[in-house]
Amino acid sequence: MSKSDPGYVAAVEEAEAGFNEGGVPIGACLVAKDGTILGRGHNMRVQKGSATLHAEISALENSGRLPANAYEGATMYTSLSPCDMCTGACILYKVARVVIAENKTFVGGEEYLKQRGIEVVVFDDEKCKNFMKKFIEKTPELWNEDIGEQ
Amino acid sequence: MSKSDPGYVAAVEEAEAGFNEGGVPIGACLVAKDGTILGRGHNMRVQKGSATLHAEISALENSGRLPANAYEGATMYTSLSPCDMCTGACILYKVARVVIAENKTFVGGEEYLKQRGIEVVVFDDEKCKNFMKKFIEKTPELWNEDIGEQ
Repeated sequence: MSKSDPGYVAAVEEAEAGFNEGGVPIGACLVAKDGTILGRGHNMRVQKGSATLHAEISALENSGRLPANAYEGATMYTSLSPCDMCTGACILYKVARVVIAENKTFVGGEEYLKQRGIEVVVFDDEKCKNFMKKFIEKTPELWNEDIGEQ
Repeated sequence: MSKSDPGYVAAVEEAEAGFNEGGVPIGACLVAKDGTILGRGHNMRVQKGSATLHAEISALENSGRLPANAYEGATMYTSLSPCDMCTGACILYKVARVVIAENKTFVGGEEYLKQRGIEVVVFDDEKCKNFMKKFIEKTPELWNEDIGEQ
């Protein structure tokens, strides 16, 4: 797992797209065991008025309907540590690992993923941290809404 | 909490709608502390080709964007014990309780919900069990796909 993985690059690109759209700047990409990108996406709270299209959910949704074996050995790349919903989605479909660009802004269900047998890899990506820093400074209430905090 | 709660009735109606549409017959309804129905929905795997619109996710999505305090004291009614993704979604938004029509067909994250401080109420609803029984007998592969099983 490295920052040059196509799935990692795609997740960061998705985060950047969200940032440029004025949305919650979190991106994700689901990659099959053989390296095929199954789906990628970013948080759609602002763009679609969605309470559930977090980045990882968007990536799963954009991957379409798949049989269980499509997720075998798969990797979910995400630009930020996954919230409880996205953690649960990765567990539901039994992805093999979750690769996280940064967890300085927010720490989600990393320990629970490990407990449920999913490998967790965390980088410390300055670019992704900066997207989140600028976003939260500008619209803290939007960030709180996205993570269910007051 | 009773089977005559408007949210419970709505969740079962949603399950029935899904059944009649030839989809995965699971419904849900999110109800605010004051009794207002915030949103209701059913599984959209077949209808929208969706891997993420489980019943509870649909109900949250159909509730639209809300601040965290809208979920305070809220109840998620669902016709079937919630999978890991839907369990995580209820935890993310900190609903107060999850009311489950039946868990004979499938047991999801009930224990984890309790660990995370969410009340869990389980009924043994014959109507909902029958929707699932008929559905799984007819299309077992579709059910397996929905819960990520082979």
